[in-house]
Amino acid sequence: MNDVFIHPKAIVESDQIGAGTRIWAFAHVMKGAVIGGNCNIGDNVFVEGGARIGDNVTVKNQCLIWEGVTIENNAFIGPNVVFTNDARPRSPRLELMRERYATKGWVAPTLVREGASIGAGASVVCGVTIGEYAMVGAGAVVVRNVPPYALVYGVPARIMATVCRCGLALHIQQNTAVCEACGNRYQRDTDSVKWVGPKTP
Amino acid sequence: MNDVFIHPKAIVESDQIGAGTRIWAFAHVMKGAVIGGNCNIGDNVFVEGGARIGDNVTVKNQCLIWEGVTIENNAFIGPNVVFTNDARPRSPRLELMRERYATKGWVAPTLVREGASIGAGASVVCGVTIGEYAMVGAGAVVVRNVPPYALVYGVPARIMATVCRCGLALHIQQNTAVCEACGNRYQRDTDSVKWVGPKTP
Amino acid sequence: MNDVFIHPKAIVESDQIGAGTRIWAFAHVMKGAVIGGNCNIGDNVFVEGGARIGDNVTVKNQCLIWEGVTIENNAFIGPNVVFTNDARPRSPRLELMRERYATKGWVAPTLVREGASIGAGASVVCGVTIGEYAMVGAGAVVVRNVPPYALVYGVPARIMATVCRCGLALHIQQNTAVCEACGNRYQRDTDSVKWVGPKTP
Repeated sequence: MNDVFIHPKAIVESDQIGAGTRIWAFAHVMKGAVIGGNCNIGDNVFVEGGARIGDNVTVKNQCLIWEGVTIENNAFIGPNVVFTNDARPRSPRLELMRERYATKGWVAPTLVREGASIGAGASVVCGVTIGEYAMVGAGAVVVRNVPPYALVYGVPARIMATVCRCGLALHIQQNTAVCEACGNRYQRDTDSVKWVGPKTP
Repeated sequence: MNDVFIHPKAIVESDQIGAGTRIWAFAHVMKGAVIGGNCNIGDNVFVEGGARIGDNVTVKNQCLIWEGVTIENNAFIGPNVVFTNDARPRSPRLELMRERYATKGWVAPTLVREGASIGAGASVVCGVTIGEYAMVGAGAVVVRNVPPYALVYGVPARIMATVCRCGLALHIQQNTAVCEACGNRYQRDTDSVKWVGPKTP
Repeated sequence: MNDVFIHPKAIVESDQIGAGTRIWAFAHVMKGAVIGGNCNIGDNVFVEGGARIGDNVTVKNQCLIWEGVTIENNAFIGPNVVFTNDARPRSPRLELMRERYATKGWVAPTLVREGASIGAGASVVCGVTIGEYAMVGAGAVVVRNVPPYALVYGVPARIMATVCRCGLALHIQQNTAVCEACGNRYQRDTDSVKWVGPKTP
């Protein structure tokens, strides 16, 4: 961990953090959390033991990332995004709930795929997958899977458009699209949009 | 307060905290705040003087709990839940507002009853009561009272189902219900759902 | 900065903070941030370099205020309000995005005008202006301009009423209104509401 920058006001209890990652003030990374290389973990972010974050991920201030959450490479987690991992939370201190919380069987996983972005203040209900390079709008509440390259927003979050890896809206014609900004190329098969390749040289 | 755990990075200015309660990093409990026993108060939580929290309450990270908010025993307050206590806030530094903010007459109370759960990222507009064992979905905005055992979500939060003390949905038939998971029994009278008793032995 | 109160647990790296301003625990004000006089900056608030806050502004706990955000005098920013400054965020660590993030051309400004209030947990999508003395409800997601004196809420935030400088709803008749509480007077021209003057003596 020689190449990890840890702000003097951060608390980092994990020893599984990749080179080049920076962790800022009042962030708290618990023992057992895994963070890749070249990430930026903003002020006040909390990463629980059992959470996994890939390489080149940007996590803006105040995000809450729990056990059961996996974030792949190059994702962007906007400020104040909150994940969850319990589909029907009760206080574990309630006698009736003792059995449920005695093991970790209650933890419902959430997966954020490669390059996806989650907008500021969004809430992600556990058990979903946010597809590669999908984009979740600010303040959205995600309650079901988000397909790759989909732009979703609202409460609950609904598919509103298709976006390129670079974030611009794609105009799909006859099931193909070329990004007007960066030239990346896509194809739509039945319901899902797939990346075909970068700008044709 | 010998039996209270206070993380070395927390700030606790209240001396009214019950035995067995744990308060985590960067939390701030102000003078005059009252917290019962056996609670868990997560990182970055703020509890203002005048707020009252019962026993066995779980308060996840980053919740903001103001004067005027009362949380009863066994409640679960999810991560990043924000309460309010001013129905029409203005900067108290504004000359026109000097009279309004000269006393505490502007504080509108909020009550979270026994065993209720509030999901991640929910906002609770002041002046409401969240009934016993009610469940508020992630990202909801609560603007009116929530009946006991109601599941509410959305913006504004609306009643979507009835839930057991254990959190599972109840199927009410002929005004009675028995939880398929834990056996707790309920009866519906006119508009409200009442707990009748635990599993019949 | 002799007359600025800085809590010992706050981090203040800016030297452009006006007299009488108080900055509370775990707040972080970065170099290059400008904050006027007589403000109250709550716990955990983050103010990035390039953000500008006027005089007499109340910023409640955990607000996130980025470069590109300007907040005028007497505004109220409720707890857990999150601003944004990137209309289509991606991880800047993503190779494809290197050009976009090489300069600050991507920063989209947001303006909160004199005396406006933003409710708890609201998210403000960048590029908008929130008009003078407008009021944004708790949990709202602001995606377009908010006219002066408008009350907006919901996702997306929509105009629901007109409010006085003091925060009370105005009843407009024949294009004029007098606040029943404080006597301030207003006139409506076409689409916008204008303040005419204070209570007639």
